[in-house]
Amino acid sequence: MTRPAPSTQTILKHWREAVPNDRLAHLVKDATRALVRALQMRLAEHAVSFGHWTFLRILWEGDGLTQRALSEQAGVMEPTTFSALKAMQRLGYVTRRKSDTDRKKVHIYLTPKGRALRDTLVPLAEEVNAIALRGVKAADVAATRALLLAVIENMAKDEAARDMRMPSTRALAGLRARKRKA
Amino acid sequence: MTRPAPSTQTILKHWREAVPNDRLAHLVKDATRALVRALQMRLAEHAVSFGHWTFLRILWEGDGLTQRALSEQAGVMEPTTFSALKAMQRLGYVTRRKSDTDRKKVHIYLTPKGRALRDTLVPLAEEVNAIALRGVKAADVAATRALLLAVIENMAKDEAARDMRMPSTRALAGLRARKRKA
Repeated sequence: MTRPAPSTQTILKHWREAVPNDRLAHLVKDATRALVRALQMRLAEHAVSFGHWTFLRILWEGDGLTQRALSEQAGVMEPTTFSALKAMQRLGYVTRRKSDTDRKKVHIYLTPKGRALRDTLVPLAEEVNAIALRGVKAADVAATRALLLAVIENMAKDEAARDMRMPSTRALAGLRARKRKA
Repeated sequence: MTRPAPSTQTILKHWREAVPNDRLAHLVKDATRALVRALQMRLAEHAVSFGHWTFLRILWEGDGLTQRALSEQAGVMEPTTFSALKAMQRLGYVTRRKSDTDRKKVHIYLTPKGRALRDTLVPLAEEVNAIALRGVKAADVAATRALLLAVIENMAKDEAARDMRMPSTRALAGLRARKRKA
């Protein structure tokens, strides 16, 4: 049916015509959408979803992580991680094993098949990265890397300061209460 | 229960300690995660989800868009857009109206309540943007904007070239077939 919307052309139009001076935060997000979409298309040719790629990428660096740690590093909620890992288990990419010391913890291990995907899939991400930076000056890459790292540092500081003032869980509880009412 | 994982601190750790030279594409994505998370926290205080924010932001610029156009601009699949808009209708933010000329098309209109949210929510995004750029030089912002725009342009070109060679729908059909087998 529909392909993953929107085409990168739609994103480009926003910046070229509609709102060229829109916030940098928004531009960073749209660049991510373009990059993710390009990788998604390539992964699809290998029958791998972007969600599974995200978990595989983390496991290639740290096999045997707990489901919770994996969820945290992937930046998705635990129920989503749980469903994805169940599917990845059915595909033969991972095995899930309860911790011997703490039965509430589940550790995730790559199978040989899941491990072997690394050599197939990482070049796809490298290709996307290389295409993205075509015609871009090394100095601009350095400036961008520094800026994006500063952004993450600024947001980490802000988050710590906000956590001191008001646990974010409280705001989220409010959101859930509102959702129930709706 | 769990707050939106991971904390920005986890993201920062990746870049400071684990893999500081990781791909720029990955850094762009992680900066997006940090920015989205910061906005998500602020929106939650107003009982607005990030998904609803995305649709509201587009409608504030273009009220009366079709559901399909909205879906495309938001970068989400149509079934997801459909559920979100149903929820937003229940919250009194939008109304959905069938086109007079083409009954298959659904147009989305903001209610006064949905429109009024703009004055409350846009300052939150502006605040996040301002915090993100604390201590960052204007020249680096300019270099980053130029680079990110080049990234989107490069990916749009790549996508057009790939569409010529192989309709991306084919790859996605493959992915779906694989999912059914699993």
